[in-house]
Amino acid sequence: MQVNAEAMALPMTQETNEAALLRELAAIVGARHVIDSTGDLEPYLVDWRGRYRGTASCVVKPGNTQEVSDVVRACAARGVAIVPQGGNTGMCGAATPLGEGPKIVLRLDRLNRVRSISRLGDAIAVDAGCILADVQAAADGVDRLFPLSLGAEGSCQIGGNLSTNAGGTAVLRYGTMRELTLGLEVVLPNGDILDAMTSLRKDSTSFDTKQLFIGAEGTLGIITGAVLKLFPKPRQRAVAFAKANSIESVLDLLAQARAELGDRLGAFELMSRGQIEVIAENLPDVTIPFALDTPWYVVIEIVDTLASSDLGAALEQLLAAAYEGELVTDALIAANETQAATFWKVRHSVSEGSKRAGYVISHDSAVALEHQATFVTRVERRIAALRPDARIVMHGHVGDGNIHILAIIPGVARDQIEALQPTVRAVNAIVDEETSALRGSISAEHGIGMANRGRMASVTSAVEMTLLRNVKQLLDPNNIMNPGKVLAPPG
Amino acid sequence: MQVNAEAMALPMTQETNEAALLRELAAIVGARHVIDSTGDLEPYLVDWRGRYRGTASCVVKPGNTQEVSDVVRACAARGVAIVPQGGNTGMCGAATPLGEGPKIVLRLDRLNRVRSISRLGDAIAVDAGCILADVQAAADGVDRLFPLSLGAEGSCQIGGNLSTNAGGTAVLRYGTMRELTLGLEVVLPNGDILDAMTSLRKDSTSFDTKQLFIGAEGTLGIITGAVLKLFPKPRQRAVAFAKANSIESVLDLLAQARAELGDRLGAFELMSRGQIEVIAENLPDVTIPFALDTPWYVVIEIVDTLASSDLGAALEQLLAAAYEGELVTDALIAANETQAATFWKVRHSVSEGSKRAGYVISHDSAVALEHQATFVTRVERRIAALRPDARIVMHGHVGDGNIHILAIIPGVARDQIEALQPTVRAVNAIVDEETSALRGSISAEHGIGMANRGRMASVTSAVEMTLLRNVKQLLDPNNIMNPGKVLAPPG
Repeated sequence: MQVNAEAMALPMTQETNEAALLRELAAIVGARHVIDSTGDLEPYLVDWRGRYRGTASCVVKPGNTQEVSDVVRACAARGVAIVPQGGNTGMCGAATPLGEGPKIVLRLDRLNRVRSISRLGDAIAVDAGCILADVQAAADGVDRLFPLSLGAEGSCQIGGNLSTNAGGTAVLRYGTMRELTLGLEVVLPNGDILDAMTSLRKDSTSFDTKQLFIGAEGTLGIITGAVLKLFPKPRQRAVAFAKANSIESVLDLLAQARAELGDRLGAFELMSRGQIEVIAENLPDVTIPFALDTPWYVVIEIVDTLASSDLGAALEQLLAAAYEGELVTDALIAANETQAATFWKVRHSVSEGSKRAGYVISHDSAVALEHQATFVTRVERRIAALRPDARIVMHGHVGDGNIHILAIIPGVARDQIEALQPTVRAVNAIVDEETSALRGSISAEHGIGMANRGRMASVTSAVEMTLLRNVKQLLDPNNIMNPGKVLAPPG
Repeated sequence: MQVNAEAMALPMTQETNEAALLRELAAIVGARHVIDSTGDLEPYLVDWRGRYRGTASCVVKPGNTQEVSDVVRACAARGVAIVPQGGNTGMCGAATPLGEGPKIVLRLDRLNRVRSISRLGDAIAVDAGCILADVQAAADGVDRLFPLSLGAEGSCQIGGNLSTNAGGTAVLRYGTMRELTLGLEVVLPNGDILDAMTSLRKDSTSFDTKQLFIGAEGTLGIITGAVLKLFPKPRQRAVAFAKANSIESVLDLLAQARAELGDRLGAFELMSRGQIEVIAENLPDVTIPFALDTPWYVVIEIVDTLASSDLGAALEQLLAAAYEGELVTDALIAANETQAATFWKVRHSVSEGSKRAGYVISHDSAVALEHQATFVTRVERRIAALRPDARIVMHGHVGDGNIHILAIIPGVARDQIEALQPTVRAVNAIVDEETSALRGSISAEHGIGMANRGRMASVTSAVEMTLLRNVKQLLDPNNIMNPGKVLAPPG
């Protein structure tokens, strides 16, 4: 067979380039830590919700920071893009290798050591590939608390938590991942290693470049290590479940709880009646401790490091005053840990219960507390007008302004999902508009990734968008770090 | 007289340019808000310690953010540099118009409004020219606390606090200025206004460009507004004064206090025996509540929002256990507010007492707690070897790792100060070396400005220095924002 030599040239060169890169990467990290197309790439090419699927030349698993740097240099020299991947538990497709062009997935799994831990300094230095639950356990081992806590904690990694500025259920008390971070180590897109692994609580030497990498979802470099804050461990907790007639009352109760109990207030989680109803209907094993006769329900947890303080009395006093002041119509304080677990079980069942009720269009909104009631009312009214058949239910970490509004469309068969997408976009547009009008966030804790990058410009000022793009261009002029994520290509 | 026309050209053009700029600035802010050489420029050209003196074409006082933007554009168009100045209380000369080239001082005084305050959201939005004490008072007015507290609080401004990532006495409990900040408004070097005045506690939409301006000392833009966190007000406090034989014991006591009392621990302030002795010798009105028979002394304050909790008992329990465990040799719990004030009076007298004892070479160091004892011992030994006549005394916010080591040289007459400068540099070099070896900070809370910019490179990695310079170049390519501060000119 006659072969057109010219037509072959490009594919042959590409293949050669790819083969050469694979050889080079194997030389850096060891052949058994490179998975190419002859191996099982599948788990690394799809996000865990199965919404995104991409392609990659290989998955490479460096064993230390220097190897990460060497891999980055090798890829940079060939113009091959790098998609950093932690536990691959993200909600927005940031860790999936999407788009055109040659690219590899870089897994941090082997960077999984606790480098050091200081009880005295209340700090832990870890590799970025450490699993969140392992960091929690290491802290617990020295009688300290690492407070970040979220659903995926058994498999998500610290690097991913940093890259999305993760939130979770303890933000009210301890802050987001940014606030929990003292130091970082980052491999820059040119392979340089930024060693900012400080454990200092106070430093006033110039602006702080490491802040840029928190929330950047791997688009500015690869986080390889971090120094994180530890806290004294609470010795006791008290948990209550309360009912209220309005969001305003719930927020007044929150303000009183903060003012009186201060940092004892560990969690303040809101659910709408509809949210609990879908749990009751779909998860019969979950005990609902109340008749559902008011529109709003709150789980309140207070904690204390001092074993001798009387938390139960403090919580009782708060709720008695709230009942007197007609902020709550009823409240139940858990008599023991079993009952406390029952209360929390309701809160932890929101995702499962909602999923069984229909197709869920979910949102991860944050608005200032003074706008919560307005926001919820407006969004609910507009979605109801758009889709009268939607069940609109809500839950959220209202203590920190983060509310998840879910529009559940019942009876959607698998083959009807595609046809539903215009509705999804219309619902998103409603949420974006109302969020933007109240200066909220469309992604309080899940990130932007691929899912939300098209929505960024509608909720971000032109000046800020320019600054974001300029910083990206400065740090990654050849656009090899997780290209196309967070910031959509201009134009 | 014959005049060389060519030689005259440059000065005449300069004068014309300056006159034109003054006219333009007057048109923007109103003539009475521009002080030129016919007015009293003096207070704006010298830092409050009288260590730096500069020159400026004028001082301009815009009345709002748009006027700041217009001033920046006018200066940028003419290549005139801008030195932002808050309360002019800085320790490092960052707000003094130094160096060559035409420049103006931009004062924020007229941007002094509280824009809004939310009890519900625990947030206050302010102009950057607000005086810190006024923000504290505004918070107090709605029964909330803005915790930043430092010596200059009666005249320093929020913009300056942000620009140095200010610390003070409440960092242990509430964090530095960065941690107290939710939102910022910044006029960029091109005049664009970055409106990031969010009050959200949680936001995961990309990396956070506003973080760059915190600690930048006005070299990347002018902060014109901020949204700051408020906290519930403590309803009670308990104060103790304790004696210890070693820094190790002091730090063990700190760790126990943190573990047991959690966020009740409001302050944990260390003084060396020598530090208290200079107070006793020079300030006879200050009562010293102890015989000075151990090397280390601590003021401990614990606070609580809950009026009903028994703080005194908790503090007593902590100190009794510490005495049992031989961490403290003696401790005194204040029986009332008067006695508490007596204890704090000692701590607040360190600067005045030291100043009267001689010429003070002071340092603002931070090292991780596990290195505190090593750091202090090494620095003390080396300074003593260099200057056997120096009194080496120490005090610090040891709870957050920040220790001030003072070398006091007695009997230095005013005309001997110049001759002492080589000693100052030699002492600085000792502190820099030991700080660097232990990965500490040479400026925990005072900034870099002009005073420390020559020391930056010796305590900062080459990769980080490059990143700092590149970010400066990106944001301020014509170097008009506070040139020469923080980052020394390269080469």
